[in-house]
Amino acid sequence: MSVLEAPLIVASNRGPVTFEPDESGELRPQRGSGGLVTALTGATQSTEGLWVAAAMSDGDREVAAAAGDGRVDVDTESGTFNVRFVVIPPDVYDRYYNWIANGILWFAHHYLWDTVRSPVFGEDSDRAWDDYVEVNREFAQALAEEGARQSRTPVYLVQDYQLAVVPRLLRELVPDALIAHFSHTPIAGPTYLRILPTRMRDELLAGMLGADVLGFHSEAWAENFLMSARSLPGTRVDLARSRVVFEGREILVRVHPISVEAEPMRALAATPRLRRLRRELGRWRGDAKLIVRVDRLELTKNVVRGFKAFEVLLTRHPEWIGQVKFLALLSPSRQVLPEYRAYTKECLAEAERINHTFEGGGWEPVRVRVKEDHARAVAAYGLYDVLLVNPVFDGMNLVAMEGPLVNRRHGVLVLSRNAGAYGRLGRYAIGINPFDVRETADAIHEALTMPQHERVRRARGLSRLVLANPLSRWVRSQLEDLERVRQRLARRAQVS
Amino acid sequence: MSVLEAPLIVASNRGPVTFEPDESGELRPQRGSGGLVTALTGATQSTEGLWVAAAMSDGDREVAAAAGDGRVDVDTESGTFNVRFVVIPPDVYDRYYNWIANGILWFAHHYLWDTVRSPVFGEDSDRAWDDYVEVNREFAQALAEEGARQSRTPVYLVQDYQLAVVPRLLRELVPDALIAHFSHTPIAGPTYLRILPTRMRDELLAGMLGADVLGFHSEAWAENFLMSARSLPGTRVDLARSRVVFEGREILVRVHPISVEAEPMRALAATPRLRRLRRELGRWRGDAKLIVRVDRLELTKNVVRGFKAFEVLLTRHPEWIGQVKFLALLSPSRQVLPEYRAYTKECLAEAERINHTFEGGGWEPVRVRVKEDHARAVAAYGLYDVLLVNPVFDGMNLVAMEGPLVNRRHGVLVLSRNAGAYGRLGRYAIGINPFDVRETADAIHEALTMPQHERVRRARGLSRLVLANPLSRWVRSQLEDLERVRQRLARRAQVS
Repeated sequence: MSVLEAPLIVASNRGPVTFEPDESGELRPQRGSGGLVTALTGATQSTEGLWVAAAMSDGDREVAAAAGDGRVDVDTESGTFNVRFVVIPPDVYDRYYNWIANGILWFAHHYLWDTVRSPVFGEDSDRAWDDYVEVNREFAQALAEEGARQSRTPVYLVQDYQLAVVPRLLRELVPDALIAHFSHTPIAGPTYLRILPTRMRDELLAGMLGADVLGFHSEAWAENFLMSARSLPGTRVDLARSRVVFEGREILVRVHPISVEAEPMRALAATPRLRRLRRELGRWRGDAKLIVRVDRLELTKNVVRGFKAFEVLLTRHPEWIGQVKFLALLSPSRQVLPEYRAYTKECLAEAERINHTFEGGGWEPVRVRVKEDHARAVAAYGLYDVLLVNPVFDGMNLVAMEGPLVNRRHGVLVLSRNAGAYGRLGRYAIGINPFDVRETADAIHEALTMPQHERVRRARGLSRLVLANPLSRWVRSQLEDLERVRQRLARRAQVS
Repeated sequence: MSVLEAPLIVASNRGPVTFEPDESGELRPQRGSGGLVTALTGATQSTEGLWVAAAMSDGDREVAAAAGDGRVDVDTESGTFNVRFVVIPPDVYDRYYNWIANGILWFAHHYLWDTVRSPVFGEDSDRAWDDYVEVNREFAQALAEEGARQSRTPVYLVQDYQLAVVPRLLRELVPDALIAHFSHTPIAGPTYLRILPTRMRDELLAGMLGADVLGFHSEAWAENFLMSARSLPGTRVDLARSRVVFEGREILVRVHPISVEAEPMRALAATPRLRRLRRELGRWRGDAKLIVRVDRLELTKNVVRGFKAFEVLLTRHPEWIGQVKFLALLSPSRQVLPEYRAYTKECLAEAERINHTFEGGGWEPVRVRVKEDHARAVAAYGLYDVLLVNPVFDGMNLVAMEGPLVNRRHGVLVLSRNAGAYGRLGRYAIGINPFDVRETADAIHEALTMPQHERVRRARGLSRLVLANPLSRWVRSQLEDLERVRQRLARRAQVS
């Protein structure tokens, strides 16, 4: 049977629903937002598969306990789908998620450390890694159990850096499983990966190599993985064919850029609420041009250099003073980590400093909102003249795709060349080096002064590219990879 | 004529001599220390070549001006050799040397940035890069002139990251020149190199690729260069054969680990002055075991984590309290850069903190000396039980070689796996991840408790390896590479 018809079992740290009590105290499922959830729940549903995820809320834990086996049916408008919750003790989850996944692996893959001073690994990080592996083992166990319950052979799609060693642990339990793992982050090249404790690095790479197919959003990240895999004893890496041989198995390394769903975004943009938000925002903007950024308040997003670039713009081109406003919509992120709390303060202080330097005559150069507010972000997407997306490094970056889908002013995208999205959208964006505030300022100036026909050409190009790559293709490409693996293994089994 | 007999023209930022006034005010040449100077002056001397270097002191500038053409004859015990000084205005030199070479390229190649906050590139760094290129052009001009003065076709050995774009600029002036460039640092892989402004990165890579042969101290750095070179438009990189084709020429990328000269070090160690210094040091040590580190006070050297590891040792193995002392001999470095001034304070504060935590009963756990003092370093080499060499990243590291040549206690080398030296010496050292203070502490403990026969075996192995790879081989290997290039080009010329 083709993989394309097999039951699909998805694993990710955060699942498609969380259970929260409603006014009456009854637990209700709340759908996660984002196209990935839609695409993957759709795929599990249509194949009668399911989704394995960590219980995030007290409600999730309660529902999982009531179900006994952690399996929960979730009713939606488009039918029922299944979730299996993995329940982790809070202290173990903290070490797995905050300490290792977000505090170490995220930093490694995005080159975020101040290496002269951090990280400092020791006994604590060693123990935390044990917990990371343990949580990954719990996932692997749940995946194996759920696979065994299926009447047909399932395929597994394991998501991201939180579950990086699931493939190998699942392979130990189900040797002939078909497993794809997808990294939504970049991945560190071989030198930077040497920062990780040796055991952590080796187990991380060997863990990922338990999969049959490893997916990345861009060529650069796939290449980094291949080069890093060469440092693991026992691997044979074929760079040209993008394959690794490890423990007698062949692993494909593939590039499948993810996309966003246009329809829900455009439907939201057309609602009365959004029209109201756009009018409100339009009043604040007045006659000025509008630069917008929409980001999590995340170390990788490069908010401070974005403000510095705006300052350089106003300094090099004083004709923009009073004529352009910068709106930064930032949603709080990972405030449990001290690095993120410090960075939040730095971002706000930088905006304040620039306002203090330049404001006058009723003109407010920068407005920052720190709040999770998707509707307001979509409203801002509608009105920008320039969308600034300048991450230092970014696996993909969906803001760069969402904005052009609903913008109404032929706004220009200024995009970091170090975002995976640049590979797809670069030719219709103005590319920047995110560390270079002069280049960023010049790019914003170029965007603000670009002739109308050129703005139109680029804006149309961007939305055409996004629409031409629907999310369903991202899922399908991974399944086609696994189907090729299945056929190859079947041929080998026949021969031997 | 074989390259091995051709006049050798060496270029490096710092030359083999500096002129300083003696008591009578007359300018006297002062020889630079270090084996590299000895080996390369010897080679220029025996081939009637010369050394091109920046005028560093007022004395150098005066001597160069008096000579008219910057050419100075330097008399030594082993005969006369020639230096050509390149005279650079101080403000241009500052931007070339402090800003670009040490403030940017050094940081890039050693992965030193706190990427969330630094670097921030702008107009200033762009102008400083122009000055860097300009100084490199002055060097190329001087090299071309000196080459033209030779009666036979010369070969060029260009040294290190300060002169990275000399090869291409020299090639423009002398298209058929035979040029080798050697990097004594690591080099950033492709992702990290993307931090550099695009023009800087492209000109840096294209500049190096002006050479016929590019040398590195270890496979890891050569591989990083090859992968980074792939990002430069117009290159074709053959990883397996370690070659790059660029602008119609073939460039070899080679690994030639440098070494140290045993003889001068051992001669110095045998002098009465050194015996006195060793006795003095021996009195301070008393009956305790002795851990020694000898380093420039350099961000890459990882001094703070070294102290933290010592703290972990004393915490995990309290039996060492009062029984072991840590001597850190640090020479001041690059204090013109604020990052280095801050780091110096952090190192001293960390040592003080640990002394404050543990000292008692007359025991001084850590002693730090911040002073350029080669003799004292060699004395300390004589007496260590453990030599700690834990750089975060290091092109090679000569301390790891010097110590074992003169140590008298079968001391054990604890060595960072991220130092180029690990590739040569690793099997007789205890390897560590320099970011892992627990692993470092455990390695020191293992070293302190290692059975005598094992210490002897390793200590002998280390000095054997160093002696088996004399510096003359490092020079000769590069010339042999160039000879192969010459023969290949000669064959091609015959065919066409």
